[in-house]
Amino acid sequence: MNIGAVDIGGTKMAAGVVDERGQVLVWRSMPTDANSLVENAVEQIAGMLRDSLAEACPEGGALDGIGIGCTGPVYRALGTLGYVEFMPGWEGAHITAMLTEITGAEAFIENDADAAALGEWAWGKGRGTQNFMLVTVGTGIGVGLVLNGQLYRGVDGAHPEIGHHFVDPNGPLCFCGGHGCWEVMASGPAMERWAQANHPQGLYRTAQQLCDAAREGEPLAEGAVDRTARYLGIGFANLVTLYTPEMIAVGGGLVQAWELFWPTVERTVQTTCGLVPYERVMITPASMGAQTGLVGAAQVWISRSIEKLS
Amino acid sequence: MNIGAVDIGGTKMAAGVVDERGQVLVWRSMPTDANSLVENAVEQIAGMLRDSLAEACPEGGALDGIGIGCTGPVYRALGTLGYVEFMPGWEGAHITAMLTEITGAEAFIENDADAAALGEWAWGKGRGTQNFMLVTVGTGIGVGLVLNGQLYRGVDGAHPEIGHHFVDPNGPLCFCGGHGCWEVMASGPAMERWAQANHPQGLYRTAQQLCDAAREGEPLAEGAVDRTARYLGIGFANLVTLYTPEMIAVGGGLVQAWELFWPTVERTVQTTCGLVPYERVMITPASMGAQTGLVGAAQVWISRSIEKLS
Repeated sequence: MNIGAVDIGGTKMAAGVVDERGQVLVWRSMPTDANSLVENAVEQIAGMLRDSLAEACPEGGALDGIGIGCTGPVYRALGTLGYVEFMPGWEGAHITAMLTEITGAEAFIENDADAAALGEWAWGKGRGTQNFMLVTVGTGIGVGLVLNGQLYRGVDGAHPEIGHHFVDPNGPLCFCGGHGCWEVMASGPAMERWAQANHPQGLYRTAQQLCDAAREGEPLAEGAVDRTARYLGIGFANLVTLYTPEMIAVGGGLVQAWELFWPTVERTVQTTCGLVPYERVMITPASMGAQTGLVGAAQVWISRSIEKLS
Repeated sequence: MNIGAVDIGGTKMAAGVVDERGQVLVWRSMPTDANSLVENAVEQIAGMLRDSLAEACPEGGALDGIGIGCTGPVYRALGTLGYVEFMPGWEGAHITAMLTEITGAEAFIENDADAAALGEWAWGKGRGTQNFMLVTVGTGIGVGLVLNGQLYRGVDGAHPEIGHHFVDPNGPLCFCGGHGCWEVMASGPAMERWAQANHPQGLYRTAQQLCDAAREGEPLAEGAVDRTARYLGIGFANLVTLYTPEMIAVGGGLVQAWELFWPTVERTVQTTCGLVPYERVMITPASMGAQTGLVGAAQVWISRSIEKLS
């Protein structure tokens, strides 16, 4: 089976072909140019899909369908994009219909955090679980929740923005409108901002540089890691208290330094979630790594096709 | 139909007969004596059920089944009680089997916040909704979530303790183990403690007295209301962001003074939940009032009987 998989982020677009076991066969990527027309972006995506298919099936073949994971709110039933701060001109674009017109293949779309959660649930650590969450911590905090094989959906099919729930109302303002939401306290940029603000010369370092410095025992970097771990712990403890899922998998750039953060996260859960059976909630690094976006996108097509049949 | 309904709280036990439309026909109540043996309590409950049935059906009749809502964690599948701080000796009691043995009627049990949510969903404001939450704010904050006609359940059928998620980690310690959970910041006792601590002579007043004084413009009482409203708003905003349900109904003692708290709750949701369609989430006072516990207990029996059939 050749599933077209499309992952649209604020800085990068990727597209490729994934098989029915979640293996990425071939893929391409290019920078997202949000200042360009969305029509151009769709043409570029279709081109990456065509090239990937040609490489995956040198004797010729067709896409069985296309799954899309896209940053920001999406209207999954309509197949259109919602408002995203850094790609405002793309709002309302009927991206599934546009891709179908070019490729001839049926397309479905989900928010990228939801797509990733579906992929990790179907083909990764979440396999066999009933209540599963994937938390992606990187430039933001994205969360997808799968219940009984289906994405959890709110009113009108809305994707809940779990990464933007309040964890400390005394914290800084986030673009979401709230002070001290999880993302603004515990994402990579949150750690970078805090470390820069507390550096005597205002030195900017990436989250990865800070983690490396913390491993070498630099006090300021250790402080940045401790603070981030504290707020990660509060957020994970909240997920345990609020959803008590069978498993919470953790993906995104943070996983590279998970050993720095995990002891605090674990202690926070153990000391504050005693009213629910927290010891039965497995919190574990995700398995998909860099391929999460494409694998998840492929699972979007599979799960939506199944939903349509039932 | 004669449904036996049992509501067990920390201070009061009620039992009665409810019909298939959610009408409480007859009921009795008595204080909970947690120092007494659980066997005695079950005998008392069975007695209240017997007396209620005799009054509801003077010509004779039988209970079709019994639904129980009980404070604290319950093992719904086993029918046993979990640990509750103020009724420690009752932990592990197989209360459904004990009631069945005395009455001859099949019994099911749920946490009382979940029972109340089922009742309000089936027969109250939540009728016809798909994703529904009931938040009961009184001496604690209890929350039940109904999805597609079933209670949301975590791993091992656990009831998530939504009222105990962190809303301000700088807040006081709660018995749940966390600092600044929603209940410790925004329940009735939280308001009472804050007002007492900030009163020059340490005067204790009930939440209701504080609300009355706030209505008359007393600054300290207004401050207590404002602080409580702020944390209620943060918690309700979190529910909107985290679950984006179709409706959140609000029950418990707080509803008597809802007009004091609602403007702040509404403003918090409007200004901080912009990433989800918050305007589609209806937040409204619940309709069941004092009968919520018994009505919800009856719905526990109905919904569990339906689950068993399917």
